[in-house]
Order: sequence, then C-alpha cells, then structure tokens
Amino acid sequence: MTALAKGRIAPQSGTAFEVKKGQLLKITDPFGEQVCDLMCYRLQDTEEWLSSGRTLDYAGSWLIRQGHVLYSNRSNPMFTILKDTCGRHDFLLTPCSLEMFHKLYHHQGHHPSCHENLYTHLQPWGIGPDRIFTTFNIFMNVQLQPDGKLTVEPPMSKAGDWILLRAEMDLIVGLTACSAGQSNNGRFKPIDWELLEPEQQALRL
Amino acid sequence: MTALAKGRIAPQSGTAFEVKKGQLLKITDPFGEQVCDLMCYRLQDTEEWLSSGRTLDYAGSWLIRQGHVLYSNRSNPMFTILKDTCGRHDFLLTPCSLEMFHKLYHHQGHHPSCHENLYTHLQPWGIGPDRIFTTFNIFMNVQLQPDGKLTVEPPMSKAGDWILLRAEMDLIVGLTACSAGQSNNGRFKPIDWELLEPEQQALRL
Repeated sequence: MTALAKGRIAPQSGTAFEVKKGQLLKITDPFGEQVCDLMCYRLQDTEEWLSSGRTLDYAGSWLIRQGHVLYSNRSNPMFTILKDTCGRHDFLLTPCSLEMFHKLYHHQGHHPSCHENLYTHLQPWGIGPDRIFTTFNIFMNVQLQPDGKLTVEPPMSKAGDWILLRAEMDLIVGLTACSAGQSNNGRFKPIDWELLEPEQQALRL
Repeated sequence: MTALAKGRIAPQSGTAFEVKKGQLLKITDPFGEQVCDLMCYRLQDTEEWLSSGRTLDYAGSWLIRQGHVLYSNRSNPMFTILKDTCGRHDFLLTPCSLEMFHKLYHHQGHHPSCHENLYTHLQPWGIGPDRIFTTFNIFMNVQLQPDGKLTVEPPMSKAGDWILLRAEMDLIVGLTACSAGQSNNGRFKPIDWELLEPEQQALRL
C-alpha cells in the first residue's frame, strides 16, 4: 500500500501541491514539537480560500480539532479533520514573516519564514504574498488567558503525532515546517506529509 | 467645533469612506449593545488590508482594546486605539453573511448581513465579496472557554460608549451596524461615526 505522493519538508522550508476532492492528507510531526502552517485555496478559483473566522464561527470553538470542518470564505467545506492524535492546534495567528522577525525578535537581515515559504511555493498557481491569510497552524500551541494575554508555548505534539484531513473540494495546499524558534521549542525539525486515496487510508485507521 | 464628516449607520446597513493619515475616527454605540464591524485597506494599494492574525500576534493579546495597534498583512500600523470606553471587542470572527444565516440559523431567502453591507459599500474602490477578511468587530462580545467552546454573548457596550481610532496611513474604511440578532441581544440599532482632525479631538478628550 503506497501513498499517491509523499514528502518530507526540510526544517524552515515549505511545499505546495494539488489535492483532489475525497483524497486524504496526512501530516506527521516525525520528531515532535514542530509546527506546520497550512493554507489552501479552491483549485478552480483561488478567490475561494481557507477562512479562520468562518471555521471558528461554524465550529462554535476557538480550538479546531478532530471532527471539525475547515471552511472557506464562501462558507464551503474545504477539509474535514478525520483523525488527530495531538488535539492542539492554532487558528488565530498568521504565519511568521520576515517583518515579524524584525518587529518581535529584532532580527536583522533575512530570516526564513512560513510566509515566504508559502508564497514562493504557491506562486506557480498565481498566489502572491498578499494572499496568505490566517493559516491553520497544525501542532501550534497558543495559550489564551481570560485577561486577554496570548502566549506561544512549546507544541504538545510528540514524535509521530499526526492529523488526517479529507479534502471536501479540489484544492491547492501550501504547507511549511515552521521557521519561528518560539513556536517550536527552539529546535527546527521537518514535517512529513502523505497524500492517500480514501480506500488506502481505510485500511490504516 | 465640527467634525470633518459624520453619519449614522441605519440598523442592519453599512457605509464606507476614506480616512487620511492622522485623522481620528470615533465610533459610537448610541443605544447600547450594538456591534459595528470594521474593515480597512490602504487607500493607495488595497492589497494591503487589516490583518487579525498580525494584530493579535503583535499585541500578545486576543482582546484588542485601548492602546493596541491594528496592523496590516504587511505588518504596518493602520489604526491606533486611542480611547475605548467599552473595552470588549472581537477580532476572531468574520462578518455575518447570507451563507451564515442559512447555515447557522436556517434562515431562508435574503437576510441583510455585514458581509454584504461591507462589499456593496466598498465596491467603488474595487473591493469585492472575496476580499472581506476577519473584521475588527467593535462592541462584539465573544466568550472563550478553556475547553475550546466559543459563544457570542450580548455586547457589554452601554448607550453612548465609543472608541477612538487614529489612522496611521491613508485608508478606505468599511463600517456596519451589525445584522445578526445573536450579536446584538436581539435588537437592531444604528451606529454613529465621526471623522475628526487631531486638534479637534484634543479638545474633547
């Protein structure tokens, strides 16, 4: 039983590919405590895009996990989360960007970022830097306090944790192995992905 | 002392206008418990837009209020919140839309929505329905629970509560008087706005 396609995203890099309706996307954190930012668009019309605000509203939840549906700006299902061995992800923050490293961490010069790693890999589909919205930040652990405080803590994911998404429409998907030290407990690791046919995954669950 | 411009947004409707850098925008809830969704874009290049994710990240807070800066997708300040007599707003959810009324409330046929009220008024600047992102939902009271649950509660705003924003760049601003019953404690009320020069407002604070 082999995957339709699979890959390992090197630390602090990214990738993008097409996923057809019904196909399954499995994303694995092979070494633990590594965030993967996901952005997606309808293949046939990239003006339809993953919407954090719609997803949270329909879920009635600010924590998105197994059983939840990721919705587009046009209120159509894009992905359903079939399985999730970690259970803690973020859908509030935007991908780390060069400007963020300058502003929050006073970094000087170039720094790899999820924002750059998404738009450079999505460029073949005509998606530029201003069309990266709030990403689904898989394995990212954002903690909120009642007084409003928001902090980024080490991921709760352990080596081998994975999430399985079913595509509900034809999609272009961008993925990263996140480049921000604070989000990944200070160590940059790869992210693994596999694209599976439904009947293949049925045998694995 | 007169405002440069002012208006009353009728219940379940919206408006849009230009604001120049340095000008002040005062938004008032004249009767209490009424939400106003705000979206904005750089006047000279509407590919630069208000970003919830960037704003929350830079604020280190999921509650955005007095003293916070609203950032663009390019990490530039768009507005600074100079004064806020309510202190409770939402920056997680997208505007209510026709599809949302169908999906969440099983409404049939047309229903006024902040989404439609924004894109119809922003159309003269070339901004269409797919370019309404997560709005700053002034006076909206979204409550989050540690287990993930998210609920929309009656606004905490009382009659006459207001928020004062200073434009940090030239902007196109869309505003609404929200059309969703659940967000406004079941009664649809207007929203007042005033555009002021800095020296005018200095005398009022």
